[in-house]
Amino acid sequence: MLPFLRPDLAQLVAYTPHPGSIESSDSSGINAATPIDRLDTNENPFDLPDDLKQKLAWTYQQAIESNRYPDGEHGALKQAIAEYVAETGEDTRFVTPNHISIGNGSDELIRSLLIATCVGGAGAVLVAHPTFSMYGILAQTLGIPVMTVGRSPTTFEIDLSAAKTALSQTEAPIRVVFMVHPNSPTGNPLTAAELSWLRSLPDHVLVVIDEAYFEFSQHTVLSELQFRSNWVILRTFSKAFRLAAHRIGYAIAHGELITALEKVRLPYNLPATTQAAAQWALTHRQTLLKVVPLLQSEREALFQTLAAHPRLQVFPSDANFLFVQLAATVADAWNCAPDAALDRLFLQLKAQGTLIRKTGNGLRITVGRPEENQRTIDRLLQLLPS
Amino acid sequence: MLPFLRPDLAQLVAYTPHPGSIESSDSSGINAATPIDRLDTNENPFDLPDDLKQKLAWTYQQAIESNRYPDGEHGALKQAIAEYVAETGEDTRFVTPNHISIGNGSDELIRSLLIATCVGGAGAVLVAHPTFSMYGILAQTLGIPVMTVGRSPTTFEIDLSAAKTALSQTEAPIRVVFMVHPNSPTGNPLTAAELSWLRSLPDHVLVVIDEAYFEFSQHTVLSELQFRSNWVILRTFSKAFRLAAHRIGYAIAHGELITALEKVRLPYNLPATTQAAAQWALTHRQTLLKVVPLLQSEREALFQTLAAHPRLQVFPSDANFLFVQLAATVADAWNCAPDAALDRLFLQLKAQGTLIRKTGNGLRITVGRPEENQRTIDRLLQLLPS
Repeated sequence: MLPFLRPDLAQLVAYTPHPGSIESSDSSGINAATPIDRLDTNENPFDLPDDLKQKLAWTYQQAIESNRYPDGEHGALKQAIAEYVAETGEDTRFVTPNHISIGNGSDELIRSLLIATCVGGAGAVLVAHPTFSMYGILAQTLGIPVMTVGRSPTTFEIDLSAAKTALSQTEAPIRVVFMVHPNSPTGNPLTAAELSWLRSLPDHVLVVIDEAYFEFSQHTVLSELQFRSNWVILRTFSKAFRLAAHRIGYAIAHGELITALEKVRLPYNLPATTQAAAQWALTHRQTLLKVVPLLQSEREALFQTLAAHPRLQVFPSDANFLFVQLAATVADAWNCAPDAALDRLFLQLKAQGTLIRKTGNGLRITVGRPEENQRTIDRLLQLLPS
Repeated sequence: MLPFLRPDLAQLVAYTPHPGSIESSDSSGINAATPIDRLDTNENPFDLPDDLKQKLAWTYQQAIESNRYPDGEHGALKQAIAEYVAETGEDTRFVTPNHISIGNGSDELIRSLLIATCVGGAGAVLVAHPTFSMYGILAQTLGIPVMTVGRSPTTFEIDLSAAKTALSQTEAPIRVVFMVHPNSPTGNPLTAAELSWLRSLPDHVLVVIDEAYFEFSQHTVLSELQFRSNWVILRTFSKAFRLAAHRIGYAIAHGELITALEKVRLPYNLPATTQAAAQWALTHRQTLLKVVPLLQSEREALFQTLAAHPRLQVFPSDANFLFVQLAATVADAWNCAPDAALDRLFLQLKAQGTLIRKTGNGLRITVGRPEENQRTIDRLLQLLPS
């Protein structure tokens, strides 16, 4: 190892963007005519409509000076986001651009939150496994300790007793708690008991509520923000808004926390094209979000079909994906360990062109277009032992 | 201050993208018909040619799926950058995509270098003032101590004796040295003595050589990289390549350092549109870089004119900007302190529509288009005391 690098980095495993993706080395088994169904990263399966892509292309060509630095203040975009956010909850008149900070995806905001609170031995973070892995990974890159508690194996509710114990220990005092609402990969929203625990946390503990899937769940803690200076909501344009390629996430919080986030972020973090894409998407939000009810009903149909299968356990989801586990009888039938059964199913689906994610002792399947969901059902049912 | 924030953040002043820009509140003095000459951020004054903007717009519209996450590995772009880099030095066959990491501007790479080396009390950084302010600012956001040494007031060479002393102290051991080559705002390249000192640094000290202005200076330490695992070069598409709006910087270094940078960076740090813009710019690099000789000769003409003025001291520059100081007689004539004289000139130029940067006890003027440079000369000469 190079002697100027932090020794703890050697142990760190980087985030793998597409662990299930088809590499050139293993694509030989797939017929070139097979459509690849990318149901592994919780993207919206629909690209922007043609007329909107045309408007964006026009903006890029006519309105953006490539040679000039982008707007480093994001003034217009913050205004548009604040207006949209105010529409998404009750009693939201408090939301102004001063409550918004915009990042290169939510990833950059997670990093900024960690930097503003925990870096340099200032504190540890708490996550409830299984959950979005970036909280832990980004904390580790910054040398920040990560405490992990479990979840109920049947409902995926957080082990609140373990969480309370973690909060009360003083060896690595917890300064930030990360929650996804609804959680990924398991799809469950925060329960009343979990919310009540979060409300009880002292104001020196920052509570991050990642509402990446808000447009699919319609669950939000937005109205509570005005009373809780230690809560921050994260949202994204990468899911329902169909802009994963463009990298835009945003934080909604108390003005003082927003000021800190603005201080620690990179001064020109959003390319001009990215800002334009988000602006257009908000202008056309009614059109873009029209597919949300379709994806919700596809999720329900997929849930019903998979739930009816005796070899599968599928969990209720408020997001644009489903979490599926295998009955013990699958590993028995295949004469292998439970994890090997998951691997086998995952790899066989992949070989047929369906990319999903193996995570948290189960499979996470993004809800795709109707034909993709049908192919996924057909392949799953054909691959499972009869 | 919110109790979960790091107390040292309260003292931190964020980077101001355009301190000289005209705010709506103070633009009333400027005639709407006055052209604004933006000579404050060292951008290339030429936008991309129309046909290239058209190709980019076509790519955005036809080739990029907005709803899909961008390529998180940057494979194609790394290959193209490695090929370009290999053209820019002697004995460069060692450069492969494994020696390249790409960031959301060089800013993200500076942050990644700091995270990989110094965070959590692992070390301090050294800068020579005046220089690019982001090294110090990003270090402070991460709680990393910044040691500053001075430069010669006449040549801006680094005070090597102070630098050696800083390196030998053990209270805050220096792990990274940041150098711009040529330096901003002063325009001077590293001298033989400075390079010789950098070569003498032990291999547990990382040497960052920021060649943001390489295409204008043609000075590079590239060929030395193969022998120095503790050196890293930063370059950018924001200056000569005219892509400031798109945010692309890159690092060239030993494979092991690149692996560490890839580990700590955000997994989807580059929007698909950004990657496409950089690819097109490299494909058309001969066209894009054609204006470099024009800007170099404009720099020389501007230098000659300003150097002939008895009230100004202008310094030789290898970059796309000039550093100018005022003779003491200016403050005398205006009956004010030297800094107030700088302020007055800066504000009067701004009021006439010329934006430049006041920094390091002088004025940094970006070389613009010929008509912009002529207006700058006319305004400066008219504003200075006769």
